[in-house]
Amino acid sequence: LSDFERVVGKSWVFTSEDDLALYRDAYSPLWGETDERLAAAAVAPGSVEEVQEIVRIAARRVVPLYPISTGRNLGYGGSAPVLSGSVILDLKRMNRIIEVDEDNAFALVEPGVSYFDLYRYIREKNLRLWIDVPDPGWGSPIGNALEHGGGWTLNPFRDHFGAHCGMEVVLANGDLLRTGMGAIAGSRTWQQNRYGVGPYVDGLFTQSNFGIVTKMGFWLYPQPQAFRSGEILALHRDDVHEFVRITAELANAGIVNSAVMIRSPFLHAGLRDEQTAAVLVETEHGTAGTWDRLARDRGLASWATTVQFYGPPAVIAAQWGHVQERFAAIKQIEFRDGPAYRFPLSQAEAETVPDKSALGIPSLSIFAMGARSENYPSPADGHLSFSPVIPMTGKALLEAHRVFSAAVREWDIEPLGFGAGFCMYPRSFVFLFTLPLSRDGGTNRKARAFFRHLITLAAQHGWGEYRAHPVFMEEVMGVYSFNDHALRRFHQMLKDALDPEGILAAGRYGIWPKHLRNKRV
Amino acid sequence: LSDFERVVGKSWVFTSEDDLALYRDAYSPLWGETDERLAAAAVAPGSVEEVQEIVRIAARRVVPLYPISTGRNLGYGGSAPVLSGSVILDLKRMNRIIEVDEDNAFALVEPGVSYFDLYRYIREKNLRLWIDVPDPGWGSPIGNALEHGGGWTLNPFRDHFGAHCGMEVVLANGDLLRTGMGAIAGSRTWQQNRYGVGPYVDGLFTQSNFGIVTKMGFWLYPQPQAFRSGEILALHRDDVHEFVRITAELANAGIVNSAVMIRSPFLHAGLRDEQTAAVLVETEHGTAGTWDRLARDRGLASWATTVQFYGPPAVIAAQWGHVQERFAAIKQIEFRDGPAYRFPLSQAEAETVPDKSALGIPSLSIFAMGARSENYPSPADGHLSFSPVIPMTGKALLEAHRVFSAAVREWDIEPLGFGAGFCMYPRSFVFLFTLPLSRDGGTNRKARAFFRHLITLAAQHGWGEYRAHPVFMEEVMGVYSFNDHALRRFHQMLKDALDPEGILAAGRYGIWPKHLRNKRV
Repeated sequence: LSDFERVVGKSWVFTSEDDLALYRDAYSPLWGETDERLAAAAVAPGSVEEVQEIVRIAARRVVPLYPISTGRNLGYGGSAPVLSGSVILDLKRMNRIIEVDEDNAFALVEPGVSYFDLYRYIREKNLRLWIDVPDPGWGSPIGNALEHGGGWTLNPFRDHFGAHCGMEVVLANGDLLRTGMGAIAGSRTWQQNRYGVGPYVDGLFTQSNFGIVTKMGFWLYPQPQAFRSGEILALHRDDVHEFVRITAELANAGIVNSAVMIRSPFLHAGLRDEQTAAVLVETEHGTAGTWDRLARDRGLASWATTVQFYGPPAVIAAQWGHVQERFAAIKQIEFRDGPAYRFPLSQAEAETVPDKSALGIPSLSIFAMGARSENYPSPADGHLSFSPVIPMTGKALLEAHRVFSAAVREWDIEPLGFGAGFCMYPRSFVFLFTLPLSRDGGTNRKARAFFRHLITLAAQHGWGEYRAHPVFMEEVMGVYSFNDHALRRFHQMLKDALDPEGILAAGRYGIWPKHLRNKRV
Repeated sequence: LSDFERVVGKSWVFTSEDDLALYRDAYSPLWGETDERLAAAAVAPGSVEEVQEIVRIAARRVVPLYPISTGRNLGYGGSAPVLSGSVILDLKRMNRIIEVDEDNAFALVEPGVSYFDLYRYIREKNLRLWIDVPDPGWGSPIGNALEHGGGWTLNPFRDHFGAHCGMEVVLANGDLLRTGMGAIAGSRTWQQNRYGVGPYVDGLFTQSNFGIVTKMGFWLYPQPQAFRSGEILALHRDDVHEFVRITAELANAGIVNSAVMIRSPFLHAGLRDEQTAAVLVETEHGTAGTWDRLARDRGLASWATTVQFYGPPAVIAAQWGHVQERFAAIKQIEFRDGPAYRFPLSQAEAETVPDKSALGIPSLSIFAMGARSENYPSPADGHLSFSPVIPMTGKALLEAHRVFSAAVREWDIEPLGFGAGFCMYPRSFVFLFTLPLSRDGGTNRKARAFFRHLITLAAQHGWGEYRAHPVFMEEVMGVYSFNDHALRRFHQMLKDALDPEGILAAGRYGIWPKHLRNKRV
């Protein structure tokens, strides 16, 4: 620690209980238990050179570091390490917006920059650019991209790793790397051409522990002229196949380019209801009458989705027209026009508009999800996201509802969120599934056991998760087991070569340094 | 070799002079010279298991292998190795189209499958899907994607690596890896979700030598209803800034989603002409009158581009309308409607339509480029592509024209193709530049010297190449030198870990195995 202090100054090394409490995972499924993942200390460098210096010291003394950007990865571990006793390498102070280019629509930022920071910068300078934001705006574009996180405007910007261009990385040996065109001295296209020449290595630094990203470029969306949205509702159970097929084709062709989520209002309302459960099982045998009758009686659509369009008014009107034309192939389909906007919004409009994340405006309104409401009279202390990826077909959507809603009833669990096929990424659904946590140990113990059950249950159907909480990373990676865990062996080869002392984020996504490996697997 | 014969059978190991002549690089800049890169033998496995067996033998006996797919990478090395004496690992026999899914619009193929093969398969089965094709249709989607090659329809399909999803890879130790969701046993979304969980490693296997890709998934484009195109012409030199700015914004917003190429008919016609050269240099000093007068006298536009739209007729009409509205900000801008089509085309139409590559129809018509014509009375024996990446701005486009056309005159070179800002990839231009080769040594010697000059000249302006011929790989990588070649050191760390014997494609993109490294750098 005194070595670290010599690098960053006494005030940026944290060891007191009060300071370290801030690095606890507020949503830890192990909150207050003996094996809660806790940091031993934290160090906050102010520059790339300081990061390099810290890494060299850690390698010399074999100190496990756990790098975080803004540390807001709630639901997936927050700012707590995978390995208790790690020293948090807190990059929050490195919060420079190095460049925003309006004509070529990109930004180059450091890890401590938040979505709020970048949004305000663009707004203050009156640049005609949009950022894409995830639900909570206090996170870091770099941190979220490295976690394969995404946002709510349109493709390709919604995939934050996919929309990045160029990285700067401190390696475990203290070396400093620039990827893509950034490796050219005096490069003119670091943020404009992602591949450079030779192997494309950027993906290595996502969901892993092979280096510390200290700069990253992002492609931004040139401010569109207009936005409009529409809702599409189908009445019958068996509409699901055509509903998803049409959605997939329109999305794959780029005509629908937004964050599509296909939900069943009928199923969602009856998640824990025996009658609904019965018709869900019945789908395997083919009669749809009961489902359709129940849905009609309850006044609920069987399937629904919202589509959003961004661009010139004439283009997006034509797109919405075409979408309706295509969905009209489904009998009794219903269309509803949703909100529409013209841009730029005034400051006052931007602050009050309800569809903030769809318009690239960062906020913290998602946290109202945990607040007291009619549905949730006792707000949870946190949540745990189970995020299996399933095929983008009606069959898979029904199957996932059947499999997971049976599990929910069997275990008597009340999910915070459940049951939508969400195009988190193009071409497949993430089946949304969020469990409540509570700081009383009982709820958490049950949530953990249920979560482990879900990992196995999903894998039995060929479904894997796209992201995981540190407490479950090893088990989530464990089902990626093709050819006797060839992928894990490959990760380990990379780890041993790139970080032989194992000082970076030990255990992240199941990748342990050699000296900790055999104790665990 | 007898070990290899035991694996694949005698008939699939090639050693005769006649057989090996087929693996020579037809466009080698070293054709017939003593250091032409030549194979010692070739072996053609028929299955993944045979590839694994061959790799294990090669590792045991330290035999350098050079994997190729269809071996058609003309202009960038064809099927000849980087290191003379390597054994070609010819994957042409592995040509199964394993799956094509119409609703989820993807294909899973082996390396020996060509664009022609995939196109015919889709056509025969009447699937409503398009592939994206590069100029020559005999290449391999896998081979081209691994080289960061692209095609001519629309984004995101044009970037063949970017549009891939999931790989199977044989590692240098013979292990078999599946990436992304393919690592789940019984995976249901291998071709639909590209990231899986944990580090995203696919990029490692592009433009490199860390493994042999034996299967790869690709996202396909659902057949659009219609196509239309338009040409945009600007008369004045100084229109270039607004011309590129508007193009970039429309492309970055996805309104123009095609393979945009901004060319100067005026400059191109006068490439080796002193009068044109003079006004090009003059641009630095700001008077545009002479340029504009010359262009008017010669009846040539100063700047031109073609935009192409794919989708529902009403949507693409609105897009073309919007594009014209935006470009109308430039005085005396001209618009011309180009060809338009409705799909599907009949077999006869598909065979005779002139815009084949824009419509995803593979062909070999590009080879007419080298044929006798008014412009090229003596066809070259081949060509060499210099492909520097420059910013997508008018300023950079002018600068690249000035710098490279001066070099062309100074060296008295007549390029086969020269001078367009081509959106090979989004957000930046590749400055097109193709040199003629000839099997008489003199032309080639001069082309090589000029090419080396170009690499350095480009790097002095912060421009690097996106791809390189084996003869120049090391020098092209050499200018990616940030922090005393940190990127090369990183590649070497990976090489030593993943292929310690150095048996895979030694020297590819400047990555040499340890035992050959010091002799060279």
